[in-house]
Amino acid sequence: MREVVILGVSMTKFGISELSMKEMFAQAALEALEESNIEARDLEALLIGNVLGVFEESQGNIAPLLGAEIGIRNDAPTTRFEGACASATVAIRHGALMVASGIYDIVMVGGTERTTIMGTPLATKTFAMGSHSEYERFAGITFPGVFGMLAHQYSRKYGIPLQDLKKSMAQVAVKNHDNGSLNPHAHFQKKITIDTVLESPMIADPLQLYDCCPFSDGAAALVVADATKFKGQVSKPVYFIGTGQGTAGTIYSQKDITRIVSREASIKEAYKQASIGPKDVDVCELHDCFTIAEIVASEGLGFFEYGKGAAAADHGDTSRKGKIPINPSGGLKAKGHPIGATGAAQAYEIVKQLRGECGERQVEGAKVGLVDTLGGDLCTACHLIFRR
Amino acid sequence: MREVVILGVSMTKFGISELSMKEMFAQAALEALEESNIEARDLEALLIGNVLGVFEESQGNIAPLLGAEIGIRNDAPTTRFEGACASATVAIRHGALMVASGIYDIVMVGGTERTTIMGTPLATKTFAMGSHSEYERFAGITFPGVFGMLAHQYSRKYGIPLQDLKKSMAQVAVKNHDNGSLNPHAHFQKKITIDTVLESPMIADPLQLYDCCPFSDGAAALVVADATKFKGQVSKPVYFIGTGQGTAGTIYSQKDITRIVSREASIKEAYKQASIGPKDVDVCELHDCFTIAEIVASEGLGFFEYGKGAAAADHGDTSRKGKIPINPSGGLKAKGHPIGATGAAQAYEIVKQLRGECGERQVEGAKVGLVDTLGGDLCTACHLIFRR
Repeated sequence: MREVVILGVSMTKFGISELSMKEMFAQAALEALEESNIEARDLEALLIGNVLGVFEESQGNIAPLLGAEIGIRNDAPTTRFEGACASATVAIRHGALMVASGIYDIVMVGGTERTTIMGTPLATKTFAMGSHSEYERFAGITFPGVFGMLAHQYSRKYGIPLQDLKKSMAQVAVKNHDNGSLNPHAHFQKKITIDTVLESPMIADPLQLYDCCPFSDGAAALVVADATKFKGQVSKPVYFIGTGQGTAGTIYSQKDITRIVSREASIKEAYKQASIGPKDVDVCELHDCFTIAEIVASEGLGFFEYGKGAAAADHGDTSRKGKIPINPSGGLKAKGHPIGATGAAQAYEIVKQLRGECGERQVEGAKVGLVDTLGGDLCTACHLIFRR
Repeated sequence: MREVVILGVSMTKFGISELSMKEMFAQAALEALEESNIEARDLEALLIGNVLGVFEESQGNIAPLLGAEIGIRNDAPTTRFEGACASATVAIRHGALMVASGIYDIVMVGGTERTTIMGTPLATKTFAMGSHSEYERFAGITFPGVFGMLAHQYSRKYGIPLQDLKKSMAQVAVKNHDNGSLNPHAHFQKKITIDTVLESPMIADPLQLYDCCPFSDGAAALVVADATKFKGQVSKPVYFIGTGQGTAGTIYSQKDITRIVSREASIKEAYKQASIGPKDVDVCELHDCFTIAEIVASEGLGFFEYGKGAAAADHGDTSRKGKIPINPSGGLKAKGHPIGATGAAQAYEIVKQLRGECGERQVEGAKVGLVDTLGGDLCTACHLIFRR
């Protein structure tokens, strides 16, 4: 396998956008090309994440249209990946592996999504289609429901009273909003307190409104290339050094949803490829669709022992100056969650952190960064590891 | 790049199914595993095409659920590709390239779709989302409309009176229904005449009902593996030897839609990879969504000069015993068109033809076979080349 370098990266501000999916993507993509010192005709392929385009703008087969929007060549394949929230992460994984293995020399990867145009009821209904349609969605399970159950199971399994766990979960929200307040691209840029969370409306017991990430609009793009040929294009090259992708079935087929088997299989492979372990990770963007999701992810990735993630959040171990800084961008919770673009924005943040370009939210001296994304009802997980 | 072999293959009967997308896929997949003499736990990945699952069965992120249905491992990535009608072809391309380049040793590729459950109005509406939502669909362009315009342009450009062209187009339908009558998996298994076509209702001038392929339900699956390690698994190995994938933008940005630029870019790369030219192809499954589509494809792939494809259809050059047998399966026209499964069924037919297992519809002595699939309004094209 060849050494793979990340050249230019860009993302739109996440939030509520009046731009179309294609316009948002074009904005991020053209900025990423400019930062890479290349033109669209230099790209050999485009690999893109998008989830709900058919509901958002009645747009299927979006990949060639995004390619055409930026002026890609006719002989450059343009491919859409859909793996629910992990769509862009899966697109980046495939692009990076195809460069590593010599199939392409230089590609663009990314994602775009415009959830807010649908309105919350349709967004909620269509987004729930990422769960199993016969066994889960029909039974009334929603994503907040899954993670609500997970929080109850976590509380019982580890003997942590629910009220205590809820305070730890609230700390996750406070920390991620604090980080988001320093990120000009974040959907929410204001700090909150523990009380903001605990006094917010109940969504799916024990998850309250501020335990949940928002629906957002946004796009992000990265240029990925063979390092031998292209690293001279940029002054601060960041390298892709490992990836994993894991699979699971329905929730009822899983013995213990506090241990997400798709994640555990995926991160094991990613660490192996990168020849590192969790102790080597300096900064991590992980899938905090709900506050409890960040806690179990911090355990599943090996940063803390199982059952210790909640206490670690309490102790500030995941803050920007903590033992393992998690979601310095604000995460899905505060930066926002444009579903099919989320993984690309996570990768954007890690690349910017490893370049030392994150201003007030910079994790000092970060050399190795990890992206973790879940898709569907715990059934897809994908990881990307980068180093400078 | 390593030598890549196709092990087991299977497809469901195409038509109207009472099985769900997952059940149809499981049927094809389990048969393909059995024919490969392996088990689901031997698979390192699943790459799948599906287009309208969210409308058909409210099912997004279908890949891990299909994987779980057959018992795939947690560490095997499961990935959905969506490129309109070319979805499964793009999935196969990626699976085969990832095996060729050493990323995986053995994977399953395929597709599943259940269009008929939606009813024709919703199927037509949602399927049209494969065109550009702002510039084409909003302008009232449908897929029959695009290929109707293409037929008019072909008639004018080459000075072929429309009534003559319509007879050539009808010959394509007659030939493909003749082939379909010999295919037990075909949606339509009855022969038709020129008059059947010319007396059928007008759909989008000059396309009549029998110029158009149907919506179908169906699934297909293939096991793709590193030849060095796995070719001993089967008695009649067939090899993957080349692929291309091309891109184009909106129709209005294309100077001449009788020359489909995405196809021309893609097939050039595929022939180059396979070190062959059109004269070396013994059998071809191509994208005959409409009869005129087969005629322009037969030119774009290099079998006939531009403007000569209609005459070639008249002369029987594309029949099973003709110069270049096209769509011996019956094609999309008679075998049927379950959108996200179509490319996998095309590959199934080519593998079966190269093994000499096609009974009455067998193309004698076929050694090299080509799959051609279009997706969207001419904006995605993908090719696969196989040899025995």
